[in-house]
Amino acid sequence: MELELNFEKAGGLVPVIIQDFETGKVLMLGFMNREALKKTLETGLVHFYSRTRKKLWLKGETSGHHLVLKEVYVDCDKDTLLLKVEPKGPVCHEGYQSCFYRKLENRELKVVEEKIFNPEEVYGKKA
Amino acid sequence: MELELNFEKAGGLVPVIIQDFETGKVLMLGFMNREALKKTLETGLVHFYSRTRKKLWLKGETSGHHLVLKEVYVDCDKDTLLLKVEPKGPVCHEGYQSCFYRKLENRELKVVEEKIFNPEEVYGKKA
Repeated sequence: MELELNFEKAGGLVPVIIQDFETGKVLMLGFMNREALKKTLETGLVHFYSRTRKKLWLKGETSGHHLVLKEVYVDCDKDTLLLKVEPKGPVCHEGYQSCFYRKLENRELKVVEEKIFNPEEVYGKKA
Repeated sequence: MELELNFEKAGGLVPVIIQDFETGKVLMLGFMNREALKKTLETGLVHFYSRTRKKLWLKGETSGHHLVLKEVYVDCDKDTLLLKVEPKGPVCHEGYQSCFYRKLENRELKVVEEKIFNPEEVYGKKA
């Protein structure tokens, strides 16, 4: 199955918003290339393309905190995806439920979530 | 006020997720450069950088459907924003409440929202 998306607009990638299927909380944003999208639709587990490591990346491959795909939405320009998922653990590699754990308040960033796990225990010292 | 974001990762831009402050519905994704972020924080109305038109863009400048900024969240890598907003009308230029009005079902895209306005009446024939 292949969605006809505009991968060219951002150099072969589309931004992908990850939202919790049950709570509606926005958990993270990742990027997919064609291969990551194909793998995600085939397996039902969210795969991204890591811009930093320049390779396919199964979310949760180290932590076990996979994102189970529930619903796929496509935007008007077909250059962005919104995926509703069931997260199998905290999403952020910093140990928080979501990557958006800081909020701008009075011109400063304030942590507004509780840390759920210790990244060093899950990913090792180099997390 | 300036947030220290990583604008370099995506060529001077950061992706910005727009979520309805009251309903939690994800409405659209846009991109901001430094100027768009500054204008947004200064005015309280969401501004983007249009990758197609290559210029600053006040969301709603033609339609009047502005996005009033309520909350700003920053992700772990400081390369993505999540803005909670109060939308002053439907967000999508196609006439729908959100840009994610199509859902993948049985390998086909299905429209899952109702069209709220006629784009030709709001934007003119070239919409």
